[in-house]
Amino acid sequence: MAKTYIFGHKNPDTDAISSAIIMADFEKQTGNTDAQAFRLGEVGPETQHALDYFNITAPDLLNDDLTDQNVILVDHNEFQQSADSIANATVQHVIDHHRIANFETAAPLYYRAEPVGCTATILYKMYKERGFEIKPEIAGLMISAIISDSLLFKSPTCTEEDVAAAEALKAIANVDLEVYGLEMLKAGASTVDKSAVDLLSLDAKSFNMGDYVTRIGQVNTVDIDEVFERHDELATAMLAANTEQNYDLFVLLVTDIINSNSKILVIGDNKDKVGEAFNVQLENGTAFLPGVVSRKKQVVPQITEVLS
Amino acid sequence: MAKTYIFGHKNPDTDAISSAIIMADFEKQTGNTDAQAFRLGEVGPETQHALDYFNITAPDLLNDDLTDQNVILVDHNEFQQSADSIANATVQHVIDHHRIANFETAAPLYYRAEPVGCTATILYKMYKERGFEIKPEIAGLMISAIISDSLLFKSPTCTEEDVAAAEALKAIANVDLEVYGLEMLKAGASTVDKSAVDLLSLDAKSFNMGDYVTRIGQVNTVDIDEVFERHDELATAMLAANTEQNYDLFVLLVTDIINSNSKILVIGDNKDKVGEAFNVQLENGTAFLPGVVSRKKQVVPQITEVLS
Repeated sequence: MAKTYIFGHKNPDTDAISSAIIMADFEKQTGNTDAQAFRLGEVGPETQHALDYFNITAPDLLNDDLTDQNVILVDHNEFQQSADSIANATVQHVIDHHRIANFETAAPLYYRAEPVGCTATILYKMYKERGFEIKPEIAGLMISAIISDSLLFKSPTCTEEDVAAAEALKAIANVDLEVYGLEMLKAGASTVDKSAVDLLSLDAKSFNMGDYVTRIGQVNTVDIDEVFERHDELATAMLAANTEQNYDLFVLLVTDIINSNSKILVIGDNKDKVGEAFNVQLENGTAFLPGVVSRKKQVVPQITEVLS
Repeated sequence: MAKTYIFGHKNPDTDAISSAIIMADFEKQTGNTDAQAFRLGEVGPETQHALDYFNITAPDLLNDDLTDQNVILVDHNEFQQSADSIANATVQHVIDHHRIANFETAAPLYYRAEPVGCTATILYKMYKERGFEIKPEIAGLMISAIISDSLLFKSPTCTEEDVAAAEALKAIANVDLEVYGLEMLKAGASTVDKSAVDLLSLDAKSFNMGDYVTRIGQVNTVDIDEVFERHDELATAMLAANTEQNYDLFVLLVTDIINSNSKILVIGDNKDKVGEAFNVQLENGTAFLPGVVSRKKQVVPQITEVLS
């Protein structure tokens, strides 16, 4: 049987890596023994903490040309967030919780999107619907992905279904959600040991908004000031990225995972538009956004609206 | 509660009309009492036969501007096949069995696509998963849609799930699939009482293929020759449509529903490309295509490939 490539988005976060591993396990239970999980980038420290805790090896980095290969996408659909050769692949199935854009296929396929907080929550429902076994380490990855995407259930993207899934899974994975969750988030929140370029690429995605390409990176931290002490270094790296990658705007969202606030740094000719999106005046390219923690729900739609 | 508009594609066929009615019933069972089915065009004789048989009124023609309205799409997703104001609507849910293209949203949504033969088959599964009641007339519409899209289970798009759904539903709807199905297909297959323009628009869709816009119409008949006696009248109307609507190519697929063959008529500067797609030489713009009955599976991908 031809291999089925399963992977999440570039700059993978814990949901992107975990959902690829989970979906490969799901496919194997359907009889697709040649399903294999891959990743489109480096494993971050938060995800590594989850993999180590549940004793799972990270998926291989995808290097193959996907032309005419069978592919399952998890946690993304927009081609610019996917493998470089995705447009020539045969996408058989998508499991995702994001908006749909810049995605198309030549043939009918399975697509399952639900507006929940985490792709792993949808996968959990798929296991339950089919009566498939959820092994302890798979339950652990589902919980890790849900806690990561929902910032321990505090994000406005978090739904009752995400909470219910994590609650149902904690006994299988044998973890306390609060204790394990905070430990995992903190493992991913250290910024001092990273370069400016590292911070920008930790969890960054590109979005086509009207005629603009906007890059939005997010850094989770327990100390926003610690990150902004490096304002100039970050601004220089963002300007360089804009030039090299043809981004019109670069927005860095620095999120305090304990207090659920963010501060943004914006670089690009139209940066005042981003201030407009949040009804604030940027100072030195920055603004404090109380209560903002979700790129998907509290940042992307707002900037899309002012740029469209 | 704000109204939820539910509708299938323009030039609605039996699946597009039936699935809108079925999904409105499904939504009501979820508690969404303001769900309402609409149609984006005239009801054809095949669909009218089904509606009359099961004593159901056709949905209203959609005339409202959908800007900022809540919308559920059934049996399509491509914006050029949808309501004119679809780009400004909030698409909350899509149930479909086609490829995904020219579709995007600003926010996450429910999307359920499966590569089965008929949207109503997916809806049938959704009723079963939720344990919802399937009333006899809803079962009848599901059966009608499945028989219509699968040409009585003969189309290569027909899957085991479509057959299983129809088999499970026939007792609820109280029909014999063969007897009812042939009667319904024949009701839609009379061509002599229709003008050339009527025949072209009965079941026609536009597709963006590479740099080309291709219009593909399908006419079901029990006598292909009866249709091609009007070759010149059809060719003239297709040429006029290309000019008026800026189609690069117009392909008319005339399908013999008894013997499962088709003959095509092609109008447009690049019509030889269509011959190439099927490895045939067009004669006077026409070619006989043995075994071809499915636009989705046996025509659209083939032409897309030569034009891309």
